[in-house]
Amino acid sequence: MSEPKDHMTLIVFSNDLDRAMAAFILATGAASSGMEVTIFFTFWGISLLRKKNFVGGKKKLVERLFGWMLPEGPEDATLSKMNFFGAGTSMMKNLMRKKKMPQLADYLSMARSLDVRLVACTTSMGIMGIRQEELLDNIEYGGVATYLGKARESGVNLFI
Amino acid sequence: MSEPKDHMTLIVFSNDLDRAMAAFILATGAASSGMEVTIFFTFWGISLLRKKNFVGGKKKLVERLFGWMLPEGPEDATLSKMNFFGAGTSMMKNLMRKKKMPQLADYLSMARSLDVRLVACTTSMGIMGIRQEELLDNIEYGGVATYLGKARESGVNLFI
Amino acid sequence: MSEPKDHMTLIVFSNDLDRAMAAFILATGAASSGMEVTIFFTFWGISLLRKKNFVGGKKKLVERLFGWMLPEGPEDATLSKMNFFGAGTSMMKNLMRKKKMPQLADYLSMARSLDVRLVACTTSMGIMGIRQEELLDNIEYGGVATYLGKARESGVNLFI
Repeated sequence: MSEPKDHMTLIVFSNDLDRAMAAFILATGAASSGMEVTIFFTFWGISLLRKKNFVGGKKKLVERLFGWMLPEGPEDATLSKMNFFGAGTSMMKNLMRKKKMPQLADYLSMARSLDVRLVACTTSMGIMGIRQEELLDNIEYGGVATYLGKARESGVNLFI
Repeated sequence: MSEPKDHMTLIVFSNDLDRAMAAFILATGAASSGMEVTIFFTFWGISLLRKKNFVGGKKKLVERLFGWMLPEGPEDATLSKMNFFGAGTSMMKNLMRKKKMPQLADYLSMARSLDVRLVACTTSMGIMGIRQEELLDNIEYGGVATYLGKARESGVNLFI
Repeated sequence: MSEPKDHMTLIVFSNDLDRAMAAFILATGAASSGMEVTIFFTFWGISLLRKKNFVGGKKKLVERLFGWMLPEGPEDATLSKMNFFGAGTSMMKNLMRKKKMPQLADYLSMARSLDVRLVACTTSMGIMGIRQEELLDNIEYGGVATYLGKARESGVNLFI
């Protein structure tokens, strides 16, 4: 077994662009320095894993409502502050593009190619009425036990 | 002394329904798998421990104002996002009830019966003007030193 | 090398008065009990390190806009909840002053005199268009690698 300090877990609770960026910058930085990284997506964070424009499946009205209101994937994410109905978010995205920085969707791909494990919290999916077919392919599913198993052998555990 | 990885501490800073749910799902999950869990309630999180409709005590006006505005216990907690003046929160509570999931107040009882230690931060109580008689019975009180003493011997420490 | 449990790292992502207070109360508490503490300021948190009324330097319009909107240092920070256009924040500051509690700016000085390391995240500075001359003197600069190096040898790591 490798040393605890070589593992990192992140709980991504939020779907805010800024918090998600922070999580992925940490995750890809750690993975490229050789750490084993697992990200658990819970609650609002689940929506970062949603496929764009997914249609289909039978849902109850209340689940459908949540579905409409939640962002679909990383490109829909907005800032937690100074969003100003999208203007602040666009401004920051432009600033990042000019500086040739990767966008959130790029970080997501980067994380996958660096073998960062992406786990969707099944409890949260139940609460939100989100189903597996709505989420990206090739991610993992788990609950609190999965998280705790990993966090107990990790040296760095953050809730973002 | 047990191994550090068998302890978990959570700082619950927020009184949002969603964040509080995340904290209690983690805490009860960990406690039922045999981990020793301590939750520190700070700042807004303190209000999750308030008794419902507590009346009495002499307070300064400004403390009284805070008292009126802060939620009273887990049933008053609302979502951090998509609250829509309570509609979003009701929707999610209904969805959870239909799926027979426990509500926040149930998680709080569950945590107590699993011997999760609930500690109210005395520094925050001072800032908010909240007194011990306003909070649930049989909780503990402590400050930063109490927290650090516990966190240093824990393998999983999260700020929620 | 000292024991992992004697180190603490905090990522201060937010510039909210309440979250910043929580971070500094933890940091100064830990440092005065002999722990080695490092605070990483990322994203909005960077603005807590800004000098008051800094003028000068050439910036692009969009960077200038962010500059105007972001708070300048600890005295500009407002509550994440119940701010009510500043009224809630003033109320809490008054309450704290009456109880002779230190303000955020006092905690910042206290942290410095206790040798808490203050590190500004260079990646975030790039995203926000904030430059070194705008920030306090005698702080450190670093990125993810700096953070991870420290977090891996710390027993308590929190994202605030």
